[in-house]
Amino acid sequence: MNTENIKYENGRLFILDQTLLPNEIKYIEMTCLEDCYDAIKRLAVRGAPAIGIFAGYAIALFHGNNLEESAEYLISSRPTAVNLSWAVKRVKAAIESGNSGIDEAIAIHNEDIEMCRKISEYGLSLLRDGDGVLTHCNAGELATSKYGTGLGPLILGKEKGYNFHAYVDETRPLLQGARLTSFELENHGIDTTLICDNMASLVMKKGLINAVLVGADRIAANGDTANKIGTSGVAVLAKHYGIPFYVLAPYSTIDFNCETGDGIIIEERNPGEIKNMFFERPSALPRTKCFNPAFDMTDNELITAIITDRGVIYPPFSENLRKAYNND
Amino acid sequence: MNTENIKYENGRLFILDQTLLPNEIKYIEMTCLEDCYDAIKRLAVRGAPAIGIFAGYAIALFHGNNLEESAEYLISSRPTAVNLSWAVKRVKAAIESGNSGIDEAIAIHNEDIEMCRKISEYGLSLLRDGDGVLTHCNAGELATSKYGTGLGPLILGKEKGYNFHAYVDETRPLLQGARLTSFELENHGIDTTLICDNMASLVMKKGLINAVLVGADRIAANGDTANKIGTSGVAVLAKHYGIPFYVLAPYSTIDFNCETGDGIIIEERNPGEIKNMFFERPSALPRTKCFNPAFDMTDNELITAIITDRGVIYPPFSENLRKAYNND
Repeated sequence: MNTENIKYENGRLFILDQTLLPNEIKYIEMTCLEDCYDAIKRLAVRGAPAIGIFAGYAIALFHGNNLEESAEYLISSRPTAVNLSWAVKRVKAAIESGNSGIDEAIAIHNEDIEMCRKISEYGLSLLRDGDGVLTHCNAGELATSKYGTGLGPLILGKEKGYNFHAYVDETRPLLQGARLTSFELENHGIDTTLICDNMASLVMKKGLINAVLVGADRIAANGDTANKIGTSGVAVLAKHYGIPFYVLAPYSTIDFNCETGDGIIIEERNPGEIKNMFFERPSALPRTKCFNPAFDMTDNELITAIITDRGVIYPPFSENLRKAYNND
Repeated sequence: MNTENIKYENGRLFILDQTLLPNEIKYIEMTCLEDCYDAIKRLAVRGAPAIGIFAGYAIALFHGNNLEESAEYLISSRPTAVNLSWAVKRVKAAIESGNSGIDEAIAIHNEDIEMCRKISEYGLSLLRDGDGVLTHCNAGELATSKYGTGLGPLILGKEKGYNFHAYVDETRPLLQGARLTSFELENHGIDTTLICDNMASLVMKKGLINAVLVGADRIAANGDTANKIGTSGVAVLAKHYGIPFYVLAPYSTIDFNCETGDGIIIEERNPGEIKNMFFERPSALPRTKCFNPAFDMTDNELITAIITDRGVIYPPFSENLRKAYNND
């Protein structure tokens, strides 16, 4: 099944609306910068690398007369995603130097595919055939490009004949695990079992999990990792049960300007996502107060290794993340 | 607001259908043993102590000509709940000795109220005014009788003028936290914040939680505790963040026939509860495999204390749970 997340064809930009998956496969065309801002904001396009790829095309196509202002506007749609500002700035710089913005955007896209393949290869080297693997949120092809990051070792492994058993956290409140990850892994023929987030402890205790694979939205210089809400809880559980916990992300996700996770602002989203969204009837009354953080911070000491396109990076991360700069 | 979970009035038995909360407050009358079996099975009445109270009335009123078979049938509706078989056997024994089954059922109900009050008093003695308290599932008045167990210290504390800040895990897949606990705590005027299960790690890390309070479906002789799926994960997190983790339950929840949690069978429920129930559209495709355990087992070493109507019991539980037998 062709479910490419971002398509640039004959000068036109389309995205697969991920809010409708898995029940409906629908592409929508972007016609202005506001469309693009909105698509990021409402998570029709999501996943840090995919947002970067998408934003590259968006700014190239729709910056209009005010490149500076357009860039700022687009970046403000998802302030936690470092790839977003990175891609926008890169395309902006190309345009400012008199080069083609769209060629730069296409280059970003192709580089991402190559990057994902490397991450997947490195990740796969840490798994054994038959392993049970727990995933949280969606760091697959829908969130990136081909292969994905967090799911890449499973997808690449399947191509190479490995048989993994994926346990997929549904990932409340937006259910990216249920809606996207299980859809994507099943499309690749991988043995997939969906669980609620709070079942991770039990499947780990039962000995079903040999490794945890997650993506990252931003990694601080010391390895502290911002990723989808719930990631830090999975990491604590993995440590308790003695299971390796791997973060898989492009090297560009590392923000050396953030020394630790304390410097990363966590976006709070609408309470309606917890009480109303997806439900037939609200799960709680209008009076009910909610706290709805989109991300959490996983402390570096809970992370076994960070797997990037520049190799598998082990602790101490403060030292080794910088060293990897020249591993390309 | 009167939201008593079980009402016995003029020889008739009514329950508040908890599957409709919080959007609808509807009482339904039980007219036969099948109604009662069904009410337990579909969680219209739920929470180990409430199931016990309800089953007492049910067997007293509807055992018909075959007490033995009726008792077995009713017990089979929820095999993990030890209170269920305990109450059924107690009423059965009363009837077999020629006493009134219904008087015995009423006695069970009144004893439960007294028991909950004691548990709540003991629990409250461990909290300080202004504490942030995390709860999982619903161990309040809807799950028991007046005050509840897990929520009892909050409700009794409010009566006495304490101001607690409750953080309520929504508790997937059946959302007892969102639908029932937040409803119940708010009815009592307690400051309540609803979160998704996977946000517990972040609120703990932010320093918002001073204690975790949960109920129990069954406690083994060594303190291992079966409770709603996700409880063990919360316990692991609490240990990681150095937060006391309290299990609150009637002393009758301890099953001295189970030496450890390994002896407790965990009920697996329908995958539809994960993918379809409550949702406007399914969160995953029909092909998607789910694992849906109703309970998990919290290892005794993760539990700070077990709070029963016979007092606060600290480790070593194997020794101290038995000692408490005569504390009444």
